[in-house]
Amino acid sequence: MRTGVWLVGARGSVATTSIVGALALRSGLTDPTGCVTELPELRGPALPAFSDLVLGGHDVVATPLAKRAETLAAAGVVPGRLVDALGTELAEVERELRLAPTVGTQADRAAATIAELTAFRERHGLARVVVVNVSATEPAAGPHPAHTDPVALRAALAGAEAVLPTSSLYAYAAVEAGCPYVDFTPSTGLRLPALRALADERGLPYAGHDGKTGETLVKSVLAPMFAMRHLAVRSWSGVNLLGGGDGATLADPAANAAKVASKQRVLGEILGYVPQGGTRIDYVEELGDHKSAWDLVTFAGFLGVGMRLEFTWHGCDSALAAPLVLDLARLTAAAHAAGDSGPLEDLAFFFKDPLGEPTHALGDQWHRLCAYTRRLHEGVSGAYPR
Amino acid sequence: MRTGVWLVGARGSVATTSIVGALALRSGLTDPTGCVTELPELRGPALPAFSDLVLGGHDVVATPLAKRAETLAAAGVVPGRLVDALGTELAEVERELRLAPTVGTQADRAAATIAELTAFRERHGLARVVVVNVSATEPAAGPHPAHTDPVALRAALAGAEAVLPTSSLYAYAAVEAGCPYVDFTPSTGLRLPALRALADERGLPYAGHDGKTGETLVKSVLAPMFAMRHLAVRSWSGVNLLGGGDGATLADPAANAAKVASKQRVLGEILGYVPQGGTRIDYVEELGDHKSAWDLVTFAGFLGVGMRLEFTWHGCDSALAAPLVLDLARLTAAAHAAGDSGPLEDLAFFFKDPLGEPTHALGDQWHRLCAYTRRLHEGVSGAYPR
Amino acid sequence: MRTGVWLVGARGSVATTSIVGALALRSGLTDPTGCVTELPELRGPALPAFSDLVLGGHDVVATPLAKRAETLAAAGVVPGRLVDALGTELAEVERELRLAPTVGTQADRAAATIAELTAFRERHGLARVVVVNVSATEPAAGPHPAHTDPVALRAALAGAEAVLPTSSLYAYAAVEAGCPYVDFTPSTGLRLPALRALADERGLPYAGHDGKTGETLVKSVLAPMFAMRHLAVRSWSGVNLLGGGDGATLADPAANAAKVASKQRVLGEILGYVPQGGTRIDYVEELGDHKSAWDLVTFAGFLGVGMRLEFTWHGCDSALAAPLVLDLARLTAAAHAAGDSGPLEDLAFFFKDPLGEPTHALGDQWHRLCAYTRRLHEGVSGAYPR
Amino acid sequence: MRTGVWLVGARGSVATTSIVGALALRSGLTDPTGCVTELPELRGPALPAFSDLVLGGHDVVATPLAKRAETLAAAGVVPGRLVDALGTELAEVERELRLAPTVGTQADRAAATIAELTAFRERHGLARVVVVNVSATEPAAGPHPAHTDPVALRAALAGAEAVLPTSSLYAYAAVEAGCPYVDFTPSTGLRLPALRALADERGLPYAGHDGKTGETLVKSVLAPMFAMRHLAVRSWSGVNLLGGGDGATLADPAANAAKVASKQRVLGEILGYVPQGGTRIDYVEELGDHKSAWDLVTFAGFLGVGMRLEFTWHGCDSALAAPLVLDLARLTAAAHAAGDSGPLEDLAFFFKDPLGEPTHALGDQWHRLCAYTRRLHEGVSGAYPR
Repeated sequence: MRTGVWLVGARGSVATTSIVGALALRSGLTDPTGCVTELPELRGPALPAFSDLVLGGHDVVATPLAKRAETLAAAGVVPGRLVDALGTELAEVERELRLAPTVGTQADRAAATIAELTAFRERHGLARVVVVNVSATEPAAGPHPAHTDPVALRAALAGAEAVLPTSSLYAYAAVEAGCPYVDFTPSTGLRLPALRALADERGLPYAGHDGKTGETLVKSVLAPMFAMRHLAVRSWSGVNLLGGGDGATLADPAANAAKVASKQRVLGEILGYVPQGGTRIDYVEELGDHKSAWDLVTFAGFLGVGMRLEFTWHGCDSALAAPLVLDLARLTAAAHAAGDSGPLEDLAFFFKDPLGEPTHALGDQWHRLCAYTRRLHEGVSGAYPR
Repeated sequence: MRTGVWLVGARGSVATTSIVGALALRSGLTDPTGCVTELPELRGPALPAFSDLVLGGHDVVATPLAKRAETLAAAGVVPGRLVDALGTELAEVERELRLAPTVGTQADRAAATIAELTAFRERHGLARVVVVNVSATEPAAGPHPAHTDPVALRAALAGAEAVLPTSSLYAYAAVEAGCPYVDFTPSTGLRLPALRALADERGLPYAGHDGKTGETLVKSVLAPMFAMRHLAVRSWSGVNLLGGGDGATLADPAANAAKVASKQRVLGEILGYVPQGGTRIDYVEELGDHKSAWDLVTFAGFLGVGMRLEFTWHGCDSALAAPLVLDLARLTAAAHAAGDSGPLEDLAFFFKDPLGEPTHALGDQWHRLCAYTRRLHEGVSGAYPR
Repeated sequence: MRTGVWLVGARGSVATTSIVGALALRSGLTDPTGCVTELPELRGPALPAFSDLVLGGHDVVATPLAKRAETLAAAGVVPGRLVDALGTELAEVERELRLAPTVGTQADRAAATIAELTAFRERHGLARVVVVNVSATEPAAGPHPAHTDPVALRAALAGAEAVLPTSSLYAYAAVEAGCPYVDFTPSTGLRLPALRALADERGLPYAGHDGKTGETLVKSVLAPMFAMRHLAVRSWSGVNLLGGGDGATLADPAANAAKVASKQRVLGEILGYVPQGGTRIDYVEELGDHKSAWDLVTFAGFLGVGMRLEFTWHGCDSALAAPLVLDLARLTAAAHAAGDSGPLEDLAFFFKDPLGEPTHALGDQWHRLCAYTRRLHEGVSGAYPR
Repeated sequence: MRTGVWLVGARGSVATTSIVGALALRSGLTDPTGCVTELPELRGPALPAFSDLVLGGHDVVATPLAKRAETLAAAGVVPGRLVDALGTELAEVERELRLAPTVGTQADRAAATIAELTAFRERHGLARVVVVNVSATEPAAGPHPAHTDPVALRAALAGAEAVLPTSSLYAYAAVEAGCPYVDFTPSTGLRLPALRALADERGLPYAGHDGKTGETLVKSVLAPMFAMRHLAVRSWSGVNLLGGGDGATLADPAANAAKVASKQRVLGEILGYVPQGGTRIDYVEELGDHKSAWDLVTFAGFLGVGMRLEFTWHGCDSALAAPLVLDLARLTAAAHAAGDSGPLEDLAFFFKDPLGEPTHALGDQWHRLCAYTRRLHEGVSGAYPR
C-alpha cells in the first residue's frame, strides 16, 4: 500500500525535517521518538509503514533539499550524521520536488497542481497521495461570494482576479485531484464552504488546523488541570519568542492575529470562561527554529487565595512538528483507505484549532484518537503486515 | 444525613483552613472554588451537604482555633473578613476539639480516642463520622511483627512498648469505632496489613495517601503529555521550598524521604521508565504556607533533538489541601452510606500515592472519579436533596 | 529645615504609598527598608529628616486619601495596620490636597498652580517645596515651536490652544514658583528646551526621568555583568504584565511607546550594541499593582557557545517606587539648599532614562550618587542634626 | 615573552576547552568572546599574547586530547569545525601532556612534577610557567600538623603517609619549581599556611579559588542590587543541576559541601546578613556540561511588602571557565613578570571564594581588576607589542 505524501512548502524547515526523519526511519537510522502513531496504543496494520511513504512536494523557492538539511543540521534541528548518511535518499526526494506554479489564472495554477499530483501518483503507482500544507502561515483571507458555492468558485477561478488565498487554492487542487488533505498551519486552507462541499462530493477526508506543538500543547493539559480541580484561572498571559521562517512570517501582524486567535480559543473552551491576558508572538531572529515561550497563570483557590504557575517552554518547532506531519499523513491515508470522508474530528489531538466542535483537552483528545485508530485497525483484515 | 468529620491534627494549617472554609460555605460567605465535589460532573444527592457536616477533632496542642485562624489570615492563607465573620461558628467547633490522649499504653490511648469518636457521633446524632488525618508527616515507621496480624496487634498494644506509629494508632481507633478513614498525609496510617484486615472485617471504606496539591499535581498532567506525544523524558528534577509546619517537619530527612519517594513514583508509573533527576524538599521558614516549586524537564524529540520545559509553582498549600479534605470527607461518607468498603481506589485523583495500582495520570483518575461518583448518586433514591 | 513635597498625582498608588510611608516613618511605625537615603553610605545632615517633610499635592480625582490607602491595603500594597494607625495624619495630608486646575487657558492653570505652591510654602513656613510628578504616564507630546523659547512659550500659554502636555505645564508652574522639580514618570515634564532654560534662569535643580523600579533595575545590573565578562548578548526580550492605574494607561500604545523606548535605551548604552529582541508591556487588570516581568537573554560565550539566562520579577510597583520618591525629594531639596542647579545627573541611579549622558550601569550610578551625597553632607556645617 | 601554561587536569573538559580555545585564538579562527583580558579596559602590553602561550599539563587519564575535543564537540561545548581545523596544533599540545605521577612517596611525586615543570620551561625557553589547577574538585582535606610549617611539611612528605591532598601536592611542586600558581577549583590547593609561606619565600604570586562561572556570578551582581536599593532579602535559595565530570564529583557530599560553602559566603558578605535558604548541587548525568541553576529570592520592600525574583541560568560550564583560565594565566604571568608576589587579591573578580578579604560584588571587583591591570601595563616600558 504505497502512499504518497505531497508537502506544500516542501523546502521549509518542517517539511525538510519531516523528509529527513522519514528517510532515517525507513533506513533504521533513528527511532520513532515523537511519532505518536508508533506508540503501542496507536500502532497497527491500518497505517502505511514508513517504508511505504513516497515523498514529494511544491515550494516557491528552489534551494536544494540537501542544502536546507545542512542548514538545519548546523542549527541543531536535525543531526548532521543523518544528513551525511542520507545523501542518496535526499537526492531521490529532490527529484520529486517542483516549483509552485505562479503564472496564469488561479484556474491555470490549480490545473497545473492537479496534473502534478496525478503524475506523482501514477509515476509511483501510489494507492493515494495525502497533501499536507506545511507552508508559511498566510494572512487571514478576506471574504468572497464564491467561497460558499462550488459552482461559483469554479467560474471565479477562471477569472483574472485571485479568488482564493494560496493555501485554499492548494486545498482545491488536492480535492480536485482526489487527494485527502491535511492543514498543519492556521491558514484558511480547506476552511471554506465551497471547498468542504467539493471534498464531500468526492468522499475525501481532511484534517486540520494548525499543529499543536508547543505552548498550546502545554496549555491543553494545564487548563484541564485547573478545571478538574475547580481552581479559578484569573489570568493567563503568554509570550512566544521565535525566529526562523515562521517567526518572520508571524512578525506580520495580520498572520500573527490568525495564530494568536487560535491559541486563545483553547482556554475559553476548556475552562468555560475566558481569563484575562493574551498571547504574544514576537520575532527574534537569533532564536532560529528554537522557540521559547513563557506563560504566567494566576489563579484563585479555596476562599479566593491567589496563587500562580509559570512555565517556560524551550522547544524546537520543526522537530516537534515533523513527526506529527508523518503521523497525520499515515492516519489520513488510513482514513481514506477505510472510506471515511469529511472532517476527521477524531484527529483533534494534533491541532490547536481542530475541525468540528471537539474538546481541546489533550487527554480527551487522546482517548478519541485511540478509539478511532483502533477502529481503523479493526477494519483491516489479514495479519499485521509490518 | 448529618455527617461528622473528625480531624486528626485539628489545629494545624490544613485543618483550620478546612474548618474556616466549611463554615464559610455553610454560611454562604464564600463560593466553592477548589471543591471538586461541587463541579457539575461530581455534584449530586449522594454527598452530604456542607450544612450537614459537623466538625471536630484532636490535636496535640491547645492553641485556640480562632487564634490559629487569625494567624492564617495574617499570612494571607484565609481572608481576615471570614475569620471576623465566623467567630460564633469557630467557637462552636472549638468546643468539639480535644487534646490528643498521651498517657497510658497505646491500648489506653486508642480506647480514649474510640470513646471520643463514639461520644461525638452520639452527641450530634451523626449518621457516621469520617476520620481524616491531616496531622504533620511522621518519619517512616520501622517494621513490627504485630503489624501483620489483628490479633497479635491487639495484644501488643496493651504492652508498655509503642507498637504503632501515631498515625496508625489513630487509624486503628477509627476502625474500632466504626469510622471510615482518610489519610491525607504520607504517614503510615492504615497502611499496615493488620489494620486493613480490621477495616475489612468491619466493612469500612478508607482512602489515601498524601494529598496531591502542588508540584505532583502538575506532574500528573505534564508527564502524560510527554507520554502521549511519544517524547522521551531524559531528566526531571524538582525542588520544593516550603516553610510552615509541614516544612519544618519535612526538614527532618526521615520524614522527607517518605514524601520524596511518593513524589518520584508518579513519573515512573506514567512514563513507563524513570528519568534521571530527583525531587528535593527544602525548608525555608520565611515562605510560610506559600510553597514554591521549580521543575526542570529535559526531553528528546524527533531525531533526538533536546528540548526543555520548566515550571514554577507558587501555591498556598493549606488553601489547596483544605477543599480536598472536605471533598474526601463527603465522598468517603457517601461510599460508607452506599455500603462500599475497603480501599477507595477510585479516589486516586486526590492523592500523590494512591491506594491500589491505579494510574497516576490526572485525566484518567478524573474519569474514574466521575464514574464512581455517578454510581454513588445513582444509588441514592429520591429527589436531589439540596 | 522644613521641606515641602508637592505630589502631582497625589491620590495615585505611588503617591498614596509615599504618603503612608512618610507618615509611618515619621511616627516610627516602620523601618526605612527601600529608602536608599537611609543607607549608611548616603545618610547624613544635608538631607531633611522624614519629620521635616510636609506633604501636599494635586490630583484630577477627589477620592479621599484614606479610601485610597484602604484600597491599597486590601491589595496588599501597604499594611492595613498602618492605615488604621495613621488616620489622623492622613486627614492632615488630605487637607493639603487640591483638585488640579482644569479651567481657563494654560496660563490660567499655571497661575493657579503657582499660587497653590506659594501658599503651601508660606502656610507651613517651608524652606522650599520640591514638586514631584508621579501622575499617570501621558502619551509622547507633539513638537511645538514655543517649546524651544521661554519668551515664545509664555506668550503661547496665554492663547486658547494647549501648548504644553500636562506634565510640562506642571514643570513650568513649579519652575515659575521657584520649586525644584523631580519627574518620576516617562512623561515630557521638564524635558523641553524652553523649560530647562527657565529652570536655569532661576537656578533650580531638577531630576528625572522615569523611576527605575523593576525589570529595568535588574537589567541595569545584569547587562554590565555580561559586558564585564565579555559575553556577547545575542537577544534580550522582555514582557511586563501589569494591572493598576499605570497598567491601564500603558495599554494605550502611545504612552507604551514612550516607556518601552526608555527601557531599551539601557541595554544599548551598557553593552555598546543593541541586541535583538524588545520589551512588551501588557495590561492584565487582575494583577493590580503587582507586576510580573519575564526576560529571556540569549548570549554567546567562548567559541560561540550559546547560553541563556531567564528571570522573572514579581514586584509591587508602588512599594518599589514610593521610597525612591521620598529619597528624591530629600536629595533634590538638599541640592537646592546647596545651591546646585540644572539637571542632577548624579541622581541617575534612580531613573530608567536619566538626564545627561551618564552610565546606565547601576554600580557606577551608585558610586556617583554616593560621591555627590557625600559632597552635600560635607557642605553642611554643624553637627549631625538627627 | 613566551609563557608556559601547565594545566593540572589537562584532559578534563575545562582544560580541553581552554586548549582548543587558545589554539583557535592563536590561529585567528575565533574571536575572544568570553576573554576578559581582551576587553578594552584590560588589554595591554603587560599580558603575554595568545601566540606566546605554550600549553602542557598533567592528567590521571590518558584519553587522547583530540578524542576529548571530539566528545566536547559532540556535546556542543566546542564547535566541531574548530576541532577539525586544529588537528596539528592539538597533536602538538598532546606531546606536552604527561600522566600524573602516582607512585612513591608524596615527596617522590612532587619531585617528578618539579622535574616535569622545569623540563617544560627549559624545552621551550619559557620566561615562566603558570600552573593552573582545573582538575576535579576534591573532598575537603583533614588537618595535619605539617600543614602549618614548611620545614615540618618537607619532612612529612618523605614519609609513607599522604600528608597533602593532591591539589596541595601540586601547589607545593609548582612553588618548588618557581611557578606562579592559580587554583580554579574549590580544592585546598595552596590554601595551607606552610604552602603560602613557601610561595612567599620564593616571591611567587598566586590566585584563587573556585572560578565564578554561573549562578554565583549572577548572585554577585544581584545581591549588590538589593543592597544598594535597601531591599531586605528574606530568603535566597538555589539549586544547581549539572552533569559532566564535575557533576559526578560533586555528587560526593564531601566535595559538594566545599563548593556549597563557597557559594553561600558571597551573599552574607555582600548583604551584611545571611538570608534564609541554601544552595543545592545535584548531579543529573544527562545534562552533561550544560548546567541549569534556579534561584528564588524573596525580599521585602517599603513597609514590609513581600516580593520575589527568580532566575534560571542555562550555562555551559567549560565554555564559561575556559576563557577565564586563559585570562588568569595571562594576568598571573604578568604579575610575576612585574615582581608581584603573594595572594593576588586584585583578581577576586574571577573567583567564588577569592583570596584575602575583598568584596564579592562584581562591580567593585571589576574596578579593582581594572586598576591593577592598568598598573601592570604602565610598568611595562616600550610600545604596545601586539
